[in-house]
Amino acid sequence: MTENTVFSEKILALLQEKKYTALQKYLDTLNPADIAECMEDLVDDAEISEEDLPRIFRLLPKELASDTFAEMDSDLQGKLIDAFSDKELSEVLGDMFLDDTVDVIEEMPANVVKRILKNVDPETRKTINQVLNYPEDSAGSIMTIEYVDLRPGMTVSEAFQHIRQTGVDKETIYICYIIGPTRKLLGLVSVRELLLASDDTYLRDIMETNIISVSTLDDREDVANLFARYNFPALPVVDKENRLVGIVTVDDAIDVLQEEATEDIEKMAAITPSEHPYLRTKTYEIWLQRIPWLLLLMVSATFTGMIITGFEDALAAQAALMAFVPMLMDTGGNSGSQASVTVIRGISLGDIEFSDIGKVLWKEFRVSLMCGAALAAVAFGKIMLVDRLLMHNPDITVTVGAVVCLTLLCTVVVAKLVGCSLPLLAKKLGFDPAVMASPFITTIVDALSLLLYFRIATMILHI
Amino acid sequence: MTENTVFSEKILALLQEKKYTALQKYLDTLNPADIAECMEDLVDDAEISEEDLPRIFRLLPKELASDTFAEMDSDLQGKLIDAFSDKELSEVLGDMFLDDTVDVIEEMPANVVKRILKNVDPETRKTINQVLNYPEDSAGSIMTIEYVDLRPGMTVSEAFQHIRQTGVDKETIYICYIIGPTRKLLGLVSVRELLLASDDTYLRDIMETNIISVSTLDDREDVANLFARYNFPALPVVDKENRLVGIVTVDDAIDVLQEEATEDIEKMAAITPSEHPYLRTKTYEIWLQRIPWLLLLMVSATFTGMIITGFEDALAAQAALMAFVPMLMDTGGNSGSQASVTVIRGISLGDIEFSDIGKVLWKEFRVSLMCGAALAAVAFGKIMLVDRLLMHNPDITVTVGAVVCLTLLCTVVVAKLVGCSLPLLAKKLGFDPAVMASPFITTIVDALSLLLYFRIATMILHI
Repeated sequence: MTENTVFSEKILALLQEKKYTALQKYLDTLNPADIAECMEDLVDDAEISEEDLPRIFRLLPKELASDTFAEMDSDLQGKLIDAFSDKELSEVLGDMFLDDTVDVIEEMPANVVKRILKNVDPETRKTINQVLNYPEDSAGSIMTIEYVDLRPGMTVSEAFQHIRQTGVDKETIYICYIIGPTRKLLGLVSVRELLLASDDTYLRDIMETNIISVSTLDDREDVANLFARYNFPALPVVDKENRLVGIVTVDDAIDVLQEEATEDIEKMAAITPSEHPYLRTKTYEIWLQRIPWLLLLMVSATFTGMIITGFEDALAAQAALMAFVPMLMDTGGNSGSQASVTVIRGISLGDIEFSDIGKVLWKEFRVSLMCGAALAAVAFGKIMLVDRLLMHNPDITVTVGAVVCLTLLCTVVVAKLVGCSLPLLAKKLGFDPAVMASPFITTIVDALSLLLYFRIATMILHI
Repeated sequence: MTENTVFSEKILALLQEKKYTALQKYLDTLNPADIAECMEDLVDDAEISEEDLPRIFRLLPKELASDTFAEMDSDLQGKLIDAFSDKELSEVLGDMFLDDTVDVIEEMPANVVKRILKNVDPETRKTINQVLNYPEDSAGSIMTIEYVDLRPGMTVSEAFQHIRQTGVDKETIYICYIIGPTRKLLGLVSVRELLLASDDTYLRDIMETNIISVSTLDDREDVANLFARYNFPALPVVDKENRLVGIVTVDDAIDVLQEEATEDIEKMAAITPSEHPYLRTKTYEIWLQRIPWLLLLMVSATFTGMIITGFEDALAAQAALMAFVPMLMDTGGNSGSQASVTVIRGISLGDIEFSDIGKVLWKEFRVSLMCGAALAAVAFGKIMLVDRLLMHNPDITVTVGAVVCLTLLCTVVVAKLVGCSLPLLAKKLGFDPAVMASPFITTIVDALSLLLYFRIATMILHI
């Protein structure tokens, strides 16, 4: 971001010196994403007034203006829309790609949405309403309708002519889609192939017909993973009758992959995912993202407390046992989250499915035995050498050590089996696997480990 | 994966029926990534013999063969290379892009590397050795050298002619780079602009000169984030003298983003990141990824145990206190990881930098107060109503409740401040912030919360 502060300061300086032509020239050298972020920063730090915002924006050349607008966050877009005349608004919207317009609309209050829809041409309005009807996380909701469609009977030179005429407003021209009379998707051809083919070749003779396409209702994360798997610049989106309705471009796929990864990470840490970057999220919103989970987990953790209360007498008899509780709980929790997080990520990347649960359990069982054994061995040595010999703690007998280490082994095994199976079960039951990560696993494993601990203790130590 | 099992079974069937021509036709309809995965699965499940592998591979048309080879994992590539004649090997390598060849080499044992380098033409060998010299996580290590370079004096039609002649072997032709006599990067032009410009325009008049380029030594994650930020199909890689040495393409950027996200997630769960998907990783390797962290954390957790031992007398006097230890430890751990994970992700996405530490601490301080207060209130109510009234536990006095809830509040504040600052400090000190996630935070916060708990208890309860 340091680079951006340079941009922001330069913009601010030129603005304050009222050097508008110089500012205009300077802005023209910047990238939409950078301009958008500079304006966000300037507004956040209250460096510029509400009036300055549209003033700066109006200095941008038409094309750059709409690209910058698309890159802004919804607060700023809202501020600008309020400042825009209807004419300005429809100009900006006119130059934007449909998927970006839809993104704007989704964030705006009803009255603003009305105004936006009023200021786009009827044809676009119709399509916007269609796209808005697709479920939030579907391919339809991230697709764009600005693609190049060609006919199988066209020659290469006709194709180029068509691209030259219509290409300006298309989000990508490098993959062209060949459709039949009812818009059925017949094949695709890349501009690269067109360039390498002779002018009079018919598209039907060079088009690729083994097409990987997605349906409007496919999950957007699955679609994004297709981009990671196959190196496509774009994927066609078709309806149930295999009619081409839009395309998803790689840049949208990247955003989806980033968002989904962030969402998973937040859920794994018991946070309700948020749309905005941390520093731009209000304290109150952050609190809202976190407190429900903390409350839920706190209440569940009290059961662990009840287990301890239940064994108070045993503990009174063997005070030394208590000292190992944190170590057992933490190690159990860590072992469990290792397994769960590995499986959760595997699920998101499409590497692991519910049908693999057998393989996964067997793998984790062997891993947990190896981990548990190693940990138990080290723990036993540490207990005997440090606690018993060095610290001269008489309560720490070999038996106590044995109890602790046996518990440790069992806890690790249980933790890893619970940790790896819960995400898969969640997935199977249609819940989000990412929620079954460290916090929940820890809470569950804590209780289990203590139960194991006290059972084993009472059995072996006869208390 | 279900789709792929269909492919695999079909391939296996045709193979067993020795219908090689049919198999060849069928393979030709599949995508390299799918063929590669099918072969991996067939080998894993020992469905096909070592001899079948090259047999299937030799059925693939030249182009598809090298693409498929590039998509395979290193084990399979090794098996094939052993089966290849030198002629076959050099054919496959000849059709591969340089960055893919480098990826293969990086995974192979020395003798295989020798053989590979022996079978590429001297020019390529020179470049491969250059690329191999770039640091592992640098832009240089993921760049490719197959790009289209043009001269500013060329006309559009000359440019197209050049692209037609050389374009076949280029990884992308859609962004062309315009270089000066010493290969200095002067500008770039997209095929789209070329198509829309008239044939006799000079490139110098239409080329984009405000270029975002990266240096060979830039971190590959930063480079990948540039793709997420700006929607480029490729980024030019230049040396210190701004000479064009290669390009990074968006498909490699996606892979980097996916890998880096997975690495962060694994580190956050105290796992040493692995290259291979979970189900293809050996049990022993998984154990190696996990056990060091478990040991380290277990040992650190024993300090928490020592704290308990240190307060044994106080606990003996107030047995009820012990029951709240798990709840306090877990809530502290969860609050801490929420903060740390949020900050870690912010750092990876480039949203948060060390310079923001003031803002972050202030934000987390307010959030933690709000969270702490809410949690304390609920906990107090629960303790009074459930533990005291319902369970008729005489030991649970209002004072005990107060002690627990005051500790809870302090713990949450401390946990969030520790959680948000450690990743930033790690980043500042050049360590990986991702390691400062749940497990470590939990271990630290556990100790702190217990210290707080017993101090507050001894103070208020005079024990």
